Amino acid sequence: MPGEYDAVDHRISDEHTHSAWNNALEPVRTVASGDVVRVSCRDATDGQLTPDSTAADVAGLEIDPVHPLTGPVAVEGARPGDVLQVDVLELDHRGWGYTVVLPGELGLGVLPEAFPDPALHVWDLEGDVGHFVDGIEVPLDPFPGIVGVAPAEDGDHDTNPPRSVGGNLDIKHLTAGSTLFLPIAVEDALFSIGDCHAAQGDGEVCVSGIEAPMAVTCRLTVRNDRDLEFPRFETAGPFAPAGLDGRAVGTTGVGDDLYGATRTAILGMIEYLHHERGLTREQGYLLCSAAVDLKINQAVNVPNWTVSAYLPGGIFPETDRVA
Amino acid sequence: MPGEYDAVDHRISDEHTHSAWNNALEPVRTVASGDVVRVSCRDATDGQLTPDSTAADVAGLEIDPVHPLTGPVAVEGARPGDVLQVDVLELDHRGWGYTVVLPGELGLGVLPEAFPDPALHVWDLEGDVGHFVDGIEVPLDPFPGIVGVAPAEDGDHDTNPPRSVGGNLDIKHLTAGSTLFLPIAVEDALFSIGDCHAAQGDGEVCVSGIEAPMAVTCRLTVRNDRDLEFPRFETAGPFAPAGLDGRAVGTTGVGDDLYGATRTAILGMIEYLHHERGLTREQGYLLCSAAVDLKINQAVNVPNWTVSAYLPGGIFPETDRVA
Repeated sequence: MPGEYDAVDHRISDEHTHSAWNNALEPVRTVASGDVVRVSCRDATDGQLTPDSTAADVAGLEIDPVHPLTGPVAVEGARPGDVLQVDVLELDHRGWGYTVVLPGELGLGVLPEAFPDPALHVWDLEGDVGHFVDGIEVPLDPFPGIVGVAPAEDGDHDTNPPRSVGGNLDIKHLTAGSTLFLPIAVEDALFSIGDCHAAQGDGEVCVSGIEAPMAVTCRLTVRNDRDLEFPRFETAGPFAPAGLDGRAVGTTGVGDDLYGATRTAILGMIEYLHHERGLTREQGYLLCSAAVDLKINQAVNVPNWTVSAYLPGGIFPETDRVA
Repeated sequence: MPGEYDAVDHRISDEHTHSAWNNALEPVRTVASGDVVRVSCRDATDGQLTPDSTAADVAGLEIDPVHPLTGPVAVEGARPGDVLQVDVLELDHRGWGYTVVLPGELGLGVLPEAFPDPALHVWDLEGDVGHFVDGIEVPLDPFPGIVGVAPAEDGDHDTNPPRSVGGNLDIKHLTAGSTLFLPIAVEDALFSIGDCHAAQGDGEVCVSGIEAPMAVTCRLTVRNDRDLEFPRFETAGPFAPAGLDGRAVGTTGVGDDLYGATRTAILGMIEYLHHERGLTREQGYLLCSAAVDLKINQAVNVPNWTVSAYLPGGIFPETDRVA
């Protein structure tokens, strides 16, 4: 929770949220291209979970408020076919977050049938580290899970799936210092943001990162010198988790479908965390979603693809690292 | 091409190859558990391509010799249900390699219809760097693309798809210093290795990394204290490409199928490399296969997944990096 970026043009509170994309929404603010906005964002459940929540509270969650997005922000001069450049400048968490397994009957996450019961870990976030169990510490590098502009198609659109105009992209590399480019579909772009994560594994396999209310500071600039059909971005640096120079453990899935290979890889990692690291399988699933990265090793060796799940060994206490 | 690992128990030449997996193959050598073997491996085309080859030579490639694997090596005491621990100790290239786009009519690679014509880049490999065009340098970190043990099922099995016993995994993190664990399916394990790559992007999208003849030194140890259904591994370090601390460029695919999202992400990267970096689209496709990493950002935001392709900015000449 560092200090506040010092050149903010607009502060937008989290009173102003919407939980569906719609290009007819009234803007909460109009800004000039190049302005810096500091946007407060509620957590994904819109306050239904708190630092005192338990797994019992997860069963009763209402899904309708998910996700409360702050906005939309109109950007003057933006036209369909332009590109919105979003320079992510700063994210400030509030010292806590949570990772949740939703009831399996909802069919969410990559392993709903293996995890029928809800589960919850409330994280204590201390500066750049989130505390799990058994001394496990996950490095934090916050980012907005949802960042997007309004779609061209009229009417309400669910916030859950991302689209070509962005939305629930869950790209963990959109951290402070990164830049995102979004194709603009409507006049004034209508930018919204929310669903912030203090950390997340590539894949977000149990359907939540380290979910946390947060303030996001970013610069919004209209570009008409680019032609994009899908999002593009520039990361703040290389891919290694901050401060984690150790070995990683990988578990591999092989199969004729990338999604199936993904499930196999994550099941393998959960078994590793259970048998060799002493976590319960539920804790393993939660940790995978917060800290394990899915990579497509190859998608060309017909008919079987390879997907692996990577666990950074540096999250374990020093005495207990991968040799 | 560093010196030779100094405690080799067995040297196995590349005279002894096979181009199908088969548990009835006669072992070329029998080793004790814990022995270190230095195995020479031919390139994937079995010598059909050389440092002097051109794209014209690609059209005439015979597919049957692909892939020549060195082995099988029998490991004394290995039993079905055990695990073979492969400590990768050293890989030595011979100063050259190639990346190839095969004729589109073969249907290989993630974009065969977009690239109907064969293409080839022969790489000059200097120590830890491979030279592309326009001053682009790809860091090398060699690994065996194929490493596996014989399958339980009798008869010949194509070397192209990987299986639960390993094979054509193309996991780029199996570099010197890493350890791979393979489930053993038959007596004596019957280990084979080949298809070495000097570098590769996660995804290997045009169906080849930087293919190169190489010698691989590894220690083979039978473990009976683990229970594995699929491969597991430990990397030599974190994920960042060696020496590349700069920003990465990401292009994103969004869709209800991971493979489709993968294709979109790679098409976006090829357009970036063409329009903003001045490469031909064919050069872009080749470079993606050698140096661009595919990550599954999320596989849970029903019904649309996010896959992004990541290009390390550090491969460009210093004057031309991502700002």
